Amino acid sequence: MSHTTREKSNLLSRVRRIRGQVEALERSLETERGCAEVLQQIAAVRGAINGLMVEVMAEHIQTHVANPQIASDARRREGADELIDVLRSYVR
Amino acid sequence: MSHTTREKSNLLSRVRRIRGQVEALERSLETERGCAEVLQQIAAVRGAINGLMVEVMAEHIQTHVANPQIASDARRREGADELIDVLRSYVR
Amino acid sequence: MSHTTREKSNLLSRVRRIRGQVEALERSLETERGCAEVLQQIAAVRGAINGLMVEVMAEHIQTHVANPQIASDARRREGADELIDVLRSYVR
Amino acid sequence: MSHTTREKSNLLSRVRRIRGQVEALERSLETERGCAEVLQQIAAVRGAINGLMVEVMAEHIQTHVANPQIASDARRREGADELIDVLRSYVR
Repeated sequence: MSHTTREKSNLLSRVRRIRGQVEALERSLETERGCAEVLQQIAAVRGAINGLMVEVMAEHIQTHVANPQIASDARRREGADELIDVLRSYVR
Repeated sequence: MSHTTREKSNLLSRVRRIRGQVEALERSLETERGCAEVLQQIAAVRGAINGLMVEVMAEHIQTHVANPQIASDARRREGADELIDVLRSYVR
Repeated sequence: MSHTTREKSNLLSRVRRIRGQVEALERSLETERGCAEVLQQIAAVRGAINGLMVEVMAEHIQTHVANPQIASDARRREGADELIDVLRSYVR
Repeated sequence: MSHTTREKSNLLSRVRRIRGQVEALERSLETERGCAEVLQQIAAVRGAINGLMVEVMAEHIQTHVANPQIASDARRREGADELIDVLRSYVR
């Protein structure tokens, strides 16, 4: 993704936290915890995934669409089209 | 929004269709139609709103973020920030 | 939907407020308001639709699935299946 | 969750697949894959989480709300309330 080290480490912490949440969810299903608890855990994972999604989109916009250093109009348009494709598949 | 006439008319047809769907939903609630039917109508309105959202976002990206004719880096950044704000409030 | 008068009037106020929001959105598109403003309006409509959806689901659950007065197991199962169908089409 | 063995094993496969997807996403971020690819991976995880959510909700409805063998009206109401709480926090 060719972004800054700080951004990369922020995204990595987010995804590792999500992995931990998914592992906890797996244990809850294995040990047959109550439905309501399991549903709250799933809702939490979904919220964290949505948060990660928005961060990656924000980075994509800043780096590949709005960045003044983008080399050509064509590259900028490409960055915009990728973003629009993701939005179309995501917001349904 | 200062977009093309064709884009404007596309968005207006979408929003008018949504108005028609909401009016039909209102009649269903007034005449006490079955829950399942009402829920399907609501899901359809939501799908149409999401579709409109993506079209307006796509236009915003093309006109105010990726457009080669944007006058300055600052204006481009402003367009990007507006988009990111909407994404943050939308994708939760 | 055969629910109480109070519930009906609560749902009707919600859907009328949504109609008003959609009409305001239509005027914003006609008068070419800024993208960011239009996107915020759309996000508000979507939030209101989601709120209505949850209220109708809650009523459906209370009236057609959990209600002690449901006449038969088969009717209760039918109410449950309708709800599950809506959830499947909604949560994607 | 006190459901059948088959349902449990279905849910466990789903959550394990999600864990695999999250691990792959982590590797993509570590090796700095393209934004567009990362966004598609995130959208896939989100779709899988939503699918799991609906399956657990469906099970909850069948086992704790619509089940003819629920011992009392109070238990049935409790199952319904838990479901409505989750819907309220989920559908926003």
